[in-house]
Amino acid sequence: MNSQLDQASPRPQNDAASTRDPDGFRLLNRYWDAANYLTVAQIYLQENALLRTALTAEHIKPRLLGHWGTSPGLSLIYVHLNRLIQKTGAEILFVAGPGHGGPAVVVNLYLEGTYSEIYPHVSQDAEGLRRLIRQFSTPGGIPSHVGPPTPGSIHEGGELGYSLAHATGAAMDNPGLIVACVVGDGEAETGPLEGSWKAPAFLNPSRDGAVLPILHLNGYKISGPTVLGRQSDEQVVALLRAHGWDPVVVSGSDPALVHVHLARALENAHAQIVQIQEQARRHGATGPARWPAVILRTPKGWTGPAVVDGVPVEGTFRAHQVPLAGVRENPAHLAQLEAWLRSYEPETLFDADGRLVPELAAIAPQGRLRMGATPSANGGSDLASLPLRPLENYALEVGTPGSTKHETTRPLGEMLRDIYTDTEQDRRFRLFSPDETNSNRLGAVFEVTDRCQMEPVLDGDDHLSPDGRVMEVLSEHLCQGWLEGYALTGRHGLFATYEAFAMVSASMTVQHAKWLQHARELPWRNPVPSLNILLTSTCWRNDHNGFSHQGPGLIDTVLSLSGSVIRVYLPPDSNTLLAAAEHVLLSRDYVNLVVVDKQAHPQYLNLEDARRHAAAGASIWHWAGNDDVPSGKITHPGALSGTQSSITTPDESVASTGPDIVLACAGDVPTEETLAAAWLLQHHVPEMRVRVVNVMDALVLPPRDAHPHGLSDVDFENLFTPDGEVIVAWHGYARAFHQLLHGRRSPGRFHVRGYSEQGTTTTPFDMVVLNRMSRYHVALEALYRVRGRFDGAQELADHCRTMLAKHESYIHEHLEDLPEIRDWVWTPPEP
Amino acid sequence: MNSQLDQASPRPQNDAASTRDPDGFRLLNRYWDAANYLTVAQIYLQENALLRTALTAEHIKPRLLGHWGTSPGLSLIYVHLNRLIQKTGAEILFVAGPGHGGPAVVVNLYLEGTYSEIYPHVSQDAEGLRRLIRQFSTPGGIPSHVGPPTPGSIHEGGELGYSLAHATGAAMDNPGLIVACVVGDGEAETGPLEGSWKAPAFLNPSRDGAVLPILHLNGYKISGPTVLGRQSDEQVVALLRAHGWDPVVVSGSDPALVHVHLARALENAHAQIVQIQEQARRHGATGPARWPAVILRTPKGWTGPAVVDGVPVEGTFRAHQVPLAGVRENPAHLAQLEAWLRSYEPETLFDADGRLVPELAAIAPQGRLRMGATPSANGGSDLASLPLRPLENYALEVGTPGSTKHETTRPLGEMLRDIYTDTEQDRRFRLFSPDETNSNRLGAVFEVTDRCQMEPVLDGDDHLSPDGRVMEVLSEHLCQGWLEGYALTGRHGLFATYEAFAMVSASMTVQHAKWLQHARELPWRNPVPSLNILLTSTCWRNDHNGFSHQGPGLIDTVLSLSGSVIRVYLPPDSNTLLAAAEHVLLSRDYVNLVVVDKQAHPQYLNLEDARRHAAAGASIWHWAGNDDVPSGKITHPGALSGTQSSITTPDESVASTGPDIVLACAGDVPTEETLAAAWLLQHHVPEMRVRVVNVMDALVLPPRDAHPHGLSDVDFENLFTPDGEVIVAWHGYARAFHQLLHGRRSPGRFHVRGYSEQGTTTTPFDMVVLNRMSRYHVALEALYRVRGRFDGAQELADHCRTMLAKHESYIHEHLEDLPEIRDWVWTPPEP
Repeated sequence: MNSQLDQASPRPQNDAASTRDPDGFRLLNRYWDAANYLTVAQIYLQENALLRTALTAEHIKPRLLGHWGTSPGLSLIYVHLNRLIQKTGAEILFVAGPGHGGPAVVVNLYLEGTYSEIYPHVSQDAEGLRRLIRQFSTPGGIPSHVGPPTPGSIHEGGELGYSLAHATGAAMDNPGLIVACVVGDGEAETGPLEGSWKAPAFLNPSRDGAVLPILHLNGYKISGPTVLGRQSDEQVVALLRAHGWDPVVVSGSDPALVHVHLARALENAHAQIVQIQEQARRHGATGPARWPAVILRTPKGWTGPAVVDGVPVEGTFRAHQVPLAGVRENPAHLAQLEAWLRSYEPETLFDADGRLVPELAAIAPQGRLRMGATPSANGGSDLASLPLRPLENYALEVGTPGSTKHETTRPLGEMLRDIYTDTEQDRRFRLFSPDETNSNRLGAVFEVTDRCQMEPVLDGDDHLSPDGRVMEVLSEHLCQGWLEGYALTGRHGLFATYEAFAMVSASMTVQHAKWLQHARELPWRNPVPSLNILLTSTCWRNDHNGFSHQGPGLIDTVLSLSGSVIRVYLPPDSNTLLAAAEHVLLSRDYVNLVVVDKQAHPQYLNLEDARRHAAAGASIWHWAGNDDVPSGKITHPGALSGTQSSITTPDESVASTGPDIVLACAGDVPTEETLAAAWLLQHHVPEMRVRVVNVMDALVLPPRDAHPHGLSDVDFENLFTPDGEVIVAWHGYARAFHQLLHGRRSPGRFHVRGYSEQGTTTTPFDMVVLNRMSRYHVALEALYRVRGRFDGAQELADHCRTMLAKHESYIHEHLEDLPEIRDWVWTPPEP
Repeated sequence: MNSQLDQASPRPQNDAASTRDPDGFRLLNRYWDAANYLTVAQIYLQENALLRTALTAEHIKPRLLGHWGTSPGLSLIYVHLNRLIQKTGAEILFVAGPGHGGPAVVVNLYLEGTYSEIYPHVSQDAEGLRRLIRQFSTPGGIPSHVGPPTPGSIHEGGELGYSLAHATGAAMDNPGLIVACVVGDGEAETGPLEGSWKAPAFLNPSRDGAVLPILHLNGYKISGPTVLGRQSDEQVVALLRAHGWDPVVVSGSDPALVHVHLARALENAHAQIVQIQEQARRHGATGPARWPAVILRTPKGWTGPAVVDGVPVEGTFRAHQVPLAGVRENPAHLAQLEAWLRSYEPETLFDADGRLVPELAAIAPQGRLRMGATPSANGGSDLASLPLRPLENYALEVGTPGSTKHETTRPLGEMLRDIYTDTEQDRRFRLFSPDETNSNRLGAVFEVTDRCQMEPVLDGDDHLSPDGRVMEVLSEHLCQGWLEGYALTGRHGLFATYEAFAMVSASMTVQHAKWLQHARELPWRNPVPSLNILLTSTCWRNDHNGFSHQGPGLIDTVLSLSGSVIRVYLPPDSNTLLAAAEHVLLSRDYVNLVVVDKQAHPQYLNLEDARRHAAAGASIWHWAGNDDVPSGKITHPGALSGTQSSITTPDESVASTGPDIVLACAGDVPTEETLAAAWLLQHHVPEMRVRVVNVMDALVLPPRDAHPHGLSDVDFENLFTPDGEVIVAWHGYARAFHQLLHGRRSPGRFHVRGYSEQGTTTTPFDMVVLNRMSRYHVALEALYRVRGRFDGAQELADHCRTMLAKHESYIHEHLEDLPEIRDWVWTPPEP
């Protein structure tokens, strides 16, 4: 431990002459000093950045914010990676797991020059230095964490746990890239991070880049030690070895020694990576590579005050944020801060103009090799869209709407298969899933690729190989984290997962949306492929499972986020799913949530109508209602003339006398029930005019000032009428739909049914009954809303109640009395 | 691997004579056969449970649902734990990580007798057997997963990842309990599970029970291998050793050998546990204990069909669900199923009445030692409430509302401290937090206990010891999982965490609410202490951090769940927080979400008013408005007569001429801004009558049919008037408030401001400006809603705009021009 600081004794004079610094470590140390100096300056100073005059209380920021503890370690790693780049020409992406060490990362970007290139007002001179220190953690300035405004970054590091997953995703299909990933010992305690250590089982050195984890143990979190921080080197080494890495420990508190050992460790790691990759690229990969890893143990708050007010600080949790809290009021603290700052000898680091002295500036890499300038951190060097074949290749033939059933997601699997094929030369697409690709009916991808796994492949394994590029791992955190890293470095992907367990990584979705929202505001940040999440095995159809598998809550989570980046699609069938998929796979900078079940469901729209429906987001399905035909006539597709479209989008005029009731639906099962209810109403109550509106883009519902997809009032009322009653069957929690309507006129006329936390292992029809969204419930509500003023209304109401009672007795009694378990499915009306 | 089944050759004749079965393994194997037989029967059969006649298609369920693959392994472990209990008298709680192996667990409960005791209609005879097989995964029957209806269970195992955390929580302060926790190799791939292996660093053998992990590797998930499943024994052993366990491998596909080895492994494990505990209880714990663990490798779908249609099934992923899918249509499959069932020789397992033969029935433990009957799985044997001292011990003295500031959560820390003290003899309370107890101002607990850690304690550590019972680990998953296990076994706790990162474990909150909802419907399940979640460091005050730390989304997630189990409290100050804490800590079967910031905030209510406010959930704050006093007079507490209460709860009559505007608020920062706005309005526009309503129980807002706390229409309108305009400042996302209002008359009159995803590292006041919830925004909206028809309105509007412009220029320009960063805080009006 450095115990000089509290005595404020000067450091040994630095001599930059290369003859006396054959390996450059003394210069490197001075560069590190510059980084540490400017880190402290950012946290404390608003003036006197170069300490040209004695420090006074007026130079101190009125509010001291920031995290010193992790910063010197982050800077140490950064300057040594600079050295490695200079020696090897490696392209390195830097992921700072302890992203709260923002000032350390920013200062390294500043010293290497990338920061000033992107933010010219923070120039490499005295005035720029003043701006640099004042902007940090200051209103109107920059946030305290690494984030989108930080050049070279794809990772925020606020919500801990995802650095290694992001790094791994960034390395996939990026053969020339090394992702150096710093994992703090706080983050190492989280579940998602612990789950990420298994990367070697999924990284193929013959085609992927390398991840170089640097587990930086300074021993403490905010106020206590960490588990790994207090374990022996042997234990930590054993843990990483057990996960398949080849770790080396670099440990110490004497910078001179640590420089030597860390430099050697990184050089060796680089050599190992090169060797692993050359071997695999020449001879093919055999088994998981034992990739190098570095365990770096240095004091928390290294080079900072050893003792403050008689209490040890350096090397303890007390160095976590601002080690000297009372500098404005307490002259002793102010003096100690000045001694601390002067211990870095700023007058030897910066010239008279405030520029880093040339011999230090020469240490940083140049051009795109600077970690702040790597194209990988900014959407990749050459972001190419996915080559999508015409949807006609996959579209289902749909004749009479609803007359055929098909597993809705299966054609999407074929589309993804062709994307794999068509990007084989320029690999930039992967599918990520918790072992559910086949279960989710996307198995067509296995015609052209396999599941990826580096562990041995056995006879009888199904489409498994190290060359496979479908990523299956039973961890939503890993699937999503890998995809986020893959997409932020400019490649495309889809995370397909069970709806109920999408909440496992909901917080990642929130954080990613925040990243995108912030990044979009920065002109220098390139757009990146969207985070595409496909939820299948929905709450309505979880046949093998039960209540725990019924949770549509991610829709609600996503709806809370900024409308500038979130999109929610509920395609009612396969062709609309294809249209949605085409859109989301080509989109940029969104979180796209697509919810659709995988089971066999009725198919409704041919491709042309599906495209129009998807483009409009919602439309009237004429063939399912009767408000636009002479009163009393039941409509069906056969009744439509050849020139009449089967749907009407909201911007088209509606030739209707006005329906008595609007039945709206969103999602496959709600659509099926609504169509059946519409048929029941028309069949039994022919005088009643019924309109069916299908909503597949949930965000057409709010007003346009709440979301860019929001329909104009005119268009909204074209669909839902200005003031008529609307019965809604909605895929998710009913209250989410009400939330979406906020700001619309008279929202009270919308009566919404949806998933209401009722469920178990039961029949699909029982699920809609339990949640009161069945065709009979919808029809009864419609009759109630029109006050039963039509002939046949009472008859239909009786019929509905009879059927529900019959269902109830069936459910309650069949265990004893009924020989078979049946389902009731809707048969659409014959033409 | 067992390759007999596809040839349907008979098994070796079992001879139960004890002379030929000295260790009882042949009997044990027959018991296991019975479990496997009834597992298969549950998945396939609706009749002919005992196979007394030849199997026909009519005996087969029309829909085949369930998971065979994991079931024989679960049963194997269960019967061996039975044996261990018989040998040692140990009290064992069984946690089935692969909870989808529901039929295996249910059948073991049935065989040991606990199932029929709780569900007498599923009796231990032929008729009961018929009900047992028919009810499984059948509408109106039982779900396919282990769940609340499963006796002896505290863990559902649907959303994988939490079994080991639940087991660890259950063992804490349960010195006599061994929690046997089966972890499947699918679950072992998840992040939360991987993060749970560090339990030895937190379990103190001198006072806690033991966790015995049984890592059951059958090699596969749904359709592919698992990482651990394909690694060598050495690698898996090394991983668990690195996490601090002492694992032993039991591996094989010959039941006779596996029985011997597993029995020995469990006996040794039990002996190790006893030794560790005796040593620690005599001499104190020194360092983490090296607890035993078992790695069990057996074939997936063991004893099932080896090959189906020429494709290997047993020992592969194809055994995951229903290995023979076509038994109703395919005679060969039917024959193979019959051979499979008969291979267990059911005629030798059950007597003529369908009862397990006595020599097998004698194998199971008796009474409360049966794992289905352990009190620990049903709220503990003696659930005692927490002894809470009168809140007067902690309440703040509050004079003029808003005149003093105090860190709101600090008195709660004192309350928790005394709970620790008062339960020292009967330990049943713990605080769980990701290293934030001090940061969250709950540090008073450290006056009487420490942070728990078994690793070495160093000089300079702050309140850290193996005897500490404050659980700090940087993992929301672990904190919440531990508390869930602790509470489901009948003990009390609080999970205090940063608001933004509560979403990390949001899916656990959803799943726990589902568990409670289901459990409440079961009369035999005892109520258990609620899951209490305290969110601090809220979106409005994340001073050291920024945008990534601003996320109030857990409120939205919780609001979607069943009203029968969820509660959301937003105390505006410290005394109301105490009243809320008293309520939630004594409550049962709820998920209680309490959101309040930790920083110094104005304090408003004395304890008496705080209690009334908390009990009512919302009330009018007369002293902050002027609608109940002669028009034009500014009210303040000094103006209230001694007998007049400062608040009016909704069931009290309101002596008001009717306000011109209602300002409603929920949450500390929204309250502060609203009170300031109310003051601005009264000061500048004295003729305008303003009412301030504070809402601290969010669930008074919906109608009573949506939540039991919902106010009656009369009470609701007593607060908010029948039709007046209401400006709302809401802690979270504005749309959540709108969602809550659904079902109320004319919800369009509520104009809500809340967190709208705007933020960075900035001043608290800038946060409310960015999100347009500042006092000036609220006042301007109020003026707009009353159409500015009062004297002084224009003057106030100008003032508000001036102040916002001043703020904006301050934020944008101070980096250059202003010497200091300031905040603007509201000063309440002088009396």
